[in-house]
Amino acid sequence: MNLSIDWLEKDTAIINKDWLSYARDRQNSLTKPPGSMGLLENIAIRISALHGCAKPSLEQVQIVVFAADHGIAEENVSAFPQAVTVEMVKNFSRGGAAISVLAKQLHADLEVVNVGTVSEHESLLGVIDQRIAAGTANFSKQAAMSQSQLAEALNAGRDAAIRARRASADLFIGGDMGIANTTSASAIACALLNESPEKLAGPGTGLDEHGVSHKVQVIADSLRLHQTNLSRPLDVLQHLGGFEIAALTGAYIASAQSGMAILVDGFIASVAALVAIKIKPGVKEWMFFSHASAEPGHKTIMQAINARPMLDLNMRLGEGSGAAVAVPIMRMACALHTGMATFEQAGVSNKD
Amino acid sequence: MNLSIDWLEKDTAIINKDWLSYARDRQNSLTKPPGSMGLLENIAIRISALHGCAKPSLEQVQIVVFAADHGIAEENVSAFPQAVTVEMVKNFSRGGAAISVLAKQLHADLEVVNVGTVSEHESLLGVIDQRIAAGTANFSKQAAMSQSQLAEALNAGRDAAIRARRASADLFIGGDMGIANTTSASAIACALLNESPEKLAGPGTGLDEHGVSHKVQVIADSLRLHQTNLSRPLDVLQHLGGFEIAALTGAYIASAQSGMAILVDGFIASVAALVAIKIKPGVKEWMFFSHASAEPGHKTIMQAINARPMLDLNMRLGEGSGAAVAVPIMRMACALHTGMATFEQAGVSNKD
Repeated sequence: MNLSIDWLEKDTAIINKDWLSYARDRQNSLTKPPGSMGLLENIAIRISALHGCAKPSLEQVQIVVFAADHGIAEENVSAFPQAVTVEMVKNFSRGGAAISVLAKQLHADLEVVNVGTVSEHESLLGVIDQRIAAGTANFSKQAAMSQSQLAEALNAGRDAAIRARRASADLFIGGDMGIANTTSASAIACALLNESPEKLAGPGTGLDEHGVSHKVQVIADSLRLHQTNLSRPLDVLQHLGGFEIAALTGAYIASAQSGMAILVDGFIASVAALVAIKIKPGVKEWMFFSHASAEPGHKTIMQAINARPMLDLNMRLGEGSGAAVAVPIMRMACALHTGMATFEQAGVSNKD
Repeated sequence: MNLSIDWLEKDTAIINKDWLSYARDRQNSLTKPPGSMGLLENIAIRISALHGCAKPSLEQVQIVVFAADHGIAEENVSAFPQAVTVEMVKNFSRGGAAISVLAKQLHADLEVVNVGTVSEHESLLGVIDQRIAAGTANFSKQAAMSQSQLAEALNAGRDAAIRARRASADLFIGGDMGIANTTSASAIACALLNESPEKLAGPGTGLDEHGVSHKVQVIADSLRLHQTNLSRPLDVLQHLGGFEIAALTGAYIASAQSGMAILVDGFIASVAALVAIKIKPGVKEWMFFSHASAEPGHKTIMQAINARPMLDLNMRLGEGSGAAVAVPIMRMACALHTGMATFEQAGVSNKD
């Protein structure tokens, strides 16, 4: 097994900025008042520039859900039992999960990568078994993972991005599944943004007020335990992370390195995006942010990244589901950019 | 020509509320934390109830754009010349407009109804010629239309809804095209909500600050001129309306009477929805609100109706474009409702 993470050093792909002004000119020539399609115009302009293409499209969407368990689940920080993680991996494979249904609607490829559930499972259609360990360690007692485990998780993410690129994906969506992973993600965000657990921890899959208070306490204690080991983003991932969060981080960086646009999902994915941007700021240029999660800490993450998500539908499922819901918006933005007539073509009078 | 509007008296279709609780139970049985798909769950539950159907879907979407000119355009209240209205009718027909492109993406039927452009046009594919007059009269000087013209416009809308229903449409979208129609719509909303023109008039297709001030003044003067004739919603439509706004109002009422779900577009369409609800409150039960328009007065309309639009993409084009962009969200909501596995089916453990 190759545990080198030297690839993280590689620059993100260069964007030809000429396309931005070319695409902006085209938007202003189309038969509508300039700016009247709002965010859809910006989306089309950016995709045109990222793809270096006058007729942008997003036909080939790759969705990769990374699944893993979390030692921190021992601390009773989730409303659901840990068994759900692997049960949901099976549900993804059989087509019964939200992301399975959405991927089918979008004609997108859905791949599930098991980077470390507690239990093993039989061979499953569409599931790649890359279990690093039977879940992370309980980070309220020790580092969540070893350095080599961190490297394995990052590399599993990079591998998924490379597979997507080889399959000619023009948009990469990363999803997450892992009982207790909002606890891990909140702890990571606290460490990176120097924010309090009160601000970033929320109900996750459905904790009550008492449950949230307990979760806040667990995170606060853990941050104290690891405080001398949280100076670099990779250290934060290693001590507080989940395998799926580290894999998402690796996937985002590798996507941006290979010149593949990224659509970021909700809370967990946004924390992974934050880590990726802290490691390599250029990653952000390749990212679109799909939706404002109902998980209360998400807003702080978006502000820290200076990102405005496209949708606000009060969703909080994960799995990449919020990103999937945003795909048709982006596709319609592309279709308008390519398919609308210009004032000249249509013989429509322009502004007085 | 039948100018009776007695059909407005007919009740809106009755909704079997049992479907709401049945659909809510199903949502809570699906493999996700209850509520975690946010607004998508509500959308699916409502469509299930409106259609009286366990497996809701929105395959057959009917988009009808009503186009008309406005006498008030003489007062220099638009950034674009009046010629654009009929030019855009041609552009709709040829497939070059935003709504043409979006309808194609959605595999939706697109119909254009000319209820009164200033100029005539040759026969155009997909355009129904029901010109009531060469635009409305200038409502800063007289009533925008006669009572019989109002009836014609309302009936043109009803006819479009009936055609949609006969074509088995399961969702009706009304769009608008008409240079200066934000002036008419703002004036109507001022009269119905007793709000000031300052609060409800905005830049429309792109007025500058000076242009907006002038528009505010024109509306204020017109409201004063007609103040004794604005007591009933139909009087407001007649004195301040546009033919396309009256047609939209008729289409919404007839859709709700025939039991067809309605997706309301932005500023103009929402004002027509407001009129329809004022005439017949039951119409609202059949309505979904697609997007928050960038036109500043839209927020006040949504508050008055007590509606929360699904999207906020800073759009302000009209034509039904914002509603079209929301259709895939509603379709995905339906697909999830129908296609996801239950906890029991998938063998996934439920909440502790």
